[in-house]
Amino acid sequence: MKKIVIGIDIGGTNTKFGLVDQKGRIIARGHIRTNEYDTFELFLTELVNVVKEKAEKYKDDYKIAGYGVGVPNGNYFSGMVKDAPNLKWKEEINFIEQLENLTGVKSYITNDANAAAIGEKLFGKAKDMNDFIVITLGTGLGSGIYCGGKLLYGSTGLAGEIGHIIVKEEGRLCGCGRKGCLETYASATGIVNTVLKKLKREERKSILRQIHKRKIESVDIYEAALKGDELALEAFEFTGRILGKALANVVAVTSPEAIFLTGGLSKAGDIIFKPAIRYFENELFNSLKGTVKILESGLKGSDAAVLGAAALCWNELSK
Amino acid sequence: MKKIVIGIDIGGTNTKFGLVDQKGRIIARGHIRTNEYDTFELFLTELVNVVKEKAEKYKDDYKIAGYGVGVPNGNYFSGMVKDAPNLKWKEEINFIEQLENLTGVKSYITNDANAAAIGEKLFGKAKDMNDFIVITLGTGLGSGIYCGGKLLYGSTGLAGEIGHIIVKEEGRLCGCGRKGCLETYASATGIVNTVLKKLKREERKSILRQIHKRKIESVDIYEAALKGDELALEAFEFTGRILGKALANVVAVTSPEAIFLTGGLSKAGDIIFKPAIRYFENELFNSLKGTVKILESGLKGSDAAVLGAAALCWNELSK
Repeated sequence: MKKIVIGIDIGGTNTKFGLVDQKGRIIARGHIRTNEYDTFELFLTELVNVVKEKAEKYKDDYKIAGYGVGVPNGNYFSGMVKDAPNLKWKEEINFIEQLENLTGVKSYITNDANAAAIGEKLFGKAKDMNDFIVITLGTGLGSGIYCGGKLLYGSTGLAGEIGHIIVKEEGRLCGCGRKGCLETYASATGIVNTVLKKLKREERKSILRQIHKRKIESVDIYEAALKGDELALEAFEFTGRILGKALANVVAVTSPEAIFLTGGLSKAGDIIFKPAIRYFENELFNSLKGTVKILESGLKGSDAAVLGAAALCWNELSK
Repeated sequence: MKKIVIGIDIGGTNTKFGLVDQKGRIIARGHIRTNEYDTFELFLTELVNVVKEKAEKYKDDYKIAGYGVGVPNGNYFSGMVKDAPNLKWKEEINFIEQLENLTGVKSYITNDANAAAIGEKLFGKAKDMNDFIVITLGTGLGSGIYCGGKLLYGSTGLAGEIGHIIVKEEGRLCGCGRKGCLETYASATGIVNTVLKKLKREERKSILRQIHKRKIESVDIYEAALKGDELALEAFEFTGRILGKALANVVAVTSPEAIFLTGGLSKAGDIIFKPAIRYFENELFNSLKGTVKILESGLKGSDAAVLGAAALCWNELSK
C-alpha cells in the first residue's frame, strides 16, 4: 500500500487540506471554515473527522503516514501555536500533541511561509537549490529561508520574520505594535493603505475612486493598474521599491540563489515584479550583483499552501 | 606525534600566524609585514618560509596537518581572493592552490569575520550554540553567521555582509561604491567620521579638538568618552543606535541565540555595548524579545583572528 500525507493550511477564513503523495500530487481535497468553532478542540476534532472521511474512500490504495500543518505562528520546535494573527484562539495551543492524539500518526507544524519554502524545495522550482528565500505577499509578509540545504529556524524556531524588518523610522503602525515594519508597506494590506493615502492626499483622477474606500482590495489596485491607472501604477512602483530595497539588504546577509515571490500580491506579475527587481538590482551589494534571481513560485495557485504543508511532513518523515 | 595546524590572519599591515593545537592553544607565534612584497607570490613564499622555520623547532612533537587562513574577501568555496580591501594585490588570486603547492598540506581560506565566528564556535563562548553571529567592528564591519550549527556561506560563499546593509538612504559614501552602508557608521572608521562631522558642525568644547583631525582614531574617541567628553559620548550613542537597530533587523531574519561583538571598536566595552543593547532591545520584534544576548567575544585580544583561522582548518579536517 502506498503512503500518503495530509497537508493542511490553516487560514483566517478557510482551512484547506489535501491528500498528497510523495511526488506532490494531490489525490483529494477538502476544507472547513476556520472560525466557526467556539474552541480550538472543536475545530480540530471536526477537521480530523472531515479528513478521515475523505481518506476513507482511498483506504484500499493509500495509508496516511503523517500530517503536516502550516499555520500562522506555528512553531516547528515546540509544536505550539500562540497569538496567531487572524485566528480566534488566542491561548497557547499544544497543536502537535492534540493532533497526534486524534490521529495516531506523526504530525508536524510550522508557519505558513516556512511551509511554502519547503513546498518550493520538494515540489517547486527550488529542487536543486540549497540557498533560497520564499516571500509570501498576503495579508502580511511572511518568509521561509533555506540556508545550506536546510530551512532556517534559528534558536527559537521564529527565524525568517523578514516582514518585521523595520524599513522606515516612525513609519506605519504594524500589527506587531512597532512602527515601519516591511509588511506594513509590502503586502496586500500595505498596498491598499498606500492607495488610501494617495486617494486622500492627491486630487488626481483614479478608477479606484469608484470603489468605496473601505472595500478596496489589492486585486482592485491590480486591475486598475492593468488599465493604466496612474495612481495604481505608482502604488505598485512604491511597493516594489520598498520591497526591492529590503530584499537587497536581506541578500547581503544570506546570499541566496533565488527569491520566490508568492501569495496574493505576487499575482500582479510584472506590475509588482518589475519595480521590485529594478530597485533590488540597483541596491544590491556589488559582489552579489547578478547572483540572485527574483522568480515566481513554481507552486501555482491555491494548492501552494497545502503542498507546502504536505512537503513539511514528507521532509520530516524522510529524516 | 600530535597534530597541529597553522592559523594565519592576513591584515592590511601585519600578517600574523600561530601554531595551534586542537584545544585552541597557541604553541608558537610569528608575523611578517603584509604589504612589503611586490607580488603576492613573494609574500606567500616568505610567509610559508617563516612558518616552516618556526615549526622546525617543534617537529619532534607536532606534525602540521593543514593551514587555515582568514583574509578579507577570502572565498571559502572558490579558494580565491579578489579585490581585498587594504591589500595591495588587486588581481584575482588562487590562494588555496598556491598555498597547497608551497606547503603540501590541506589549506582553507575564508574571510576574517567568518574565521572569527568559527573561532568563537570551537574555542570561544559559542561552543554549545548552533545559531549565533559574530560582528567584527574594525576598519569596516564584518560578520560571520552560524545557522543550525553551520557557518552561513550562501550560494556564493559571500553571505554575511551585514556591514553592507544599507541603513540610511543617500547616507555616507561606502568603499563599496554605494551610500549608507552600516559599516560607514558602525566601525572604527565610522565613529571617527561621526566625530569629524560633529567637530565641524558644532561649536562645542571637546578634548578631541586637541588632536589634528587627520590623526583622530577610534581609540582617542574611547579615551575622551572615558573622561566624560560629551561629544565623544554622543558619537558612541549615535554609533550604538545605528548598530543596535540594524542588528534587530538581522535578528528578525536569523533569530540567533547570541551576537558577539569583537574588533577594535568593541574594546570600548560598556561605552559601545550599552547604547547598542538598549536600541537593539527596544527595536526587536516582540516575539524575539529576551531571546538574544549581545556579548563580548570569548576570544580575547590579539589572538582572536589567528585562533579563528586555525579553527577553520580544524573544523574542515574534522569533516
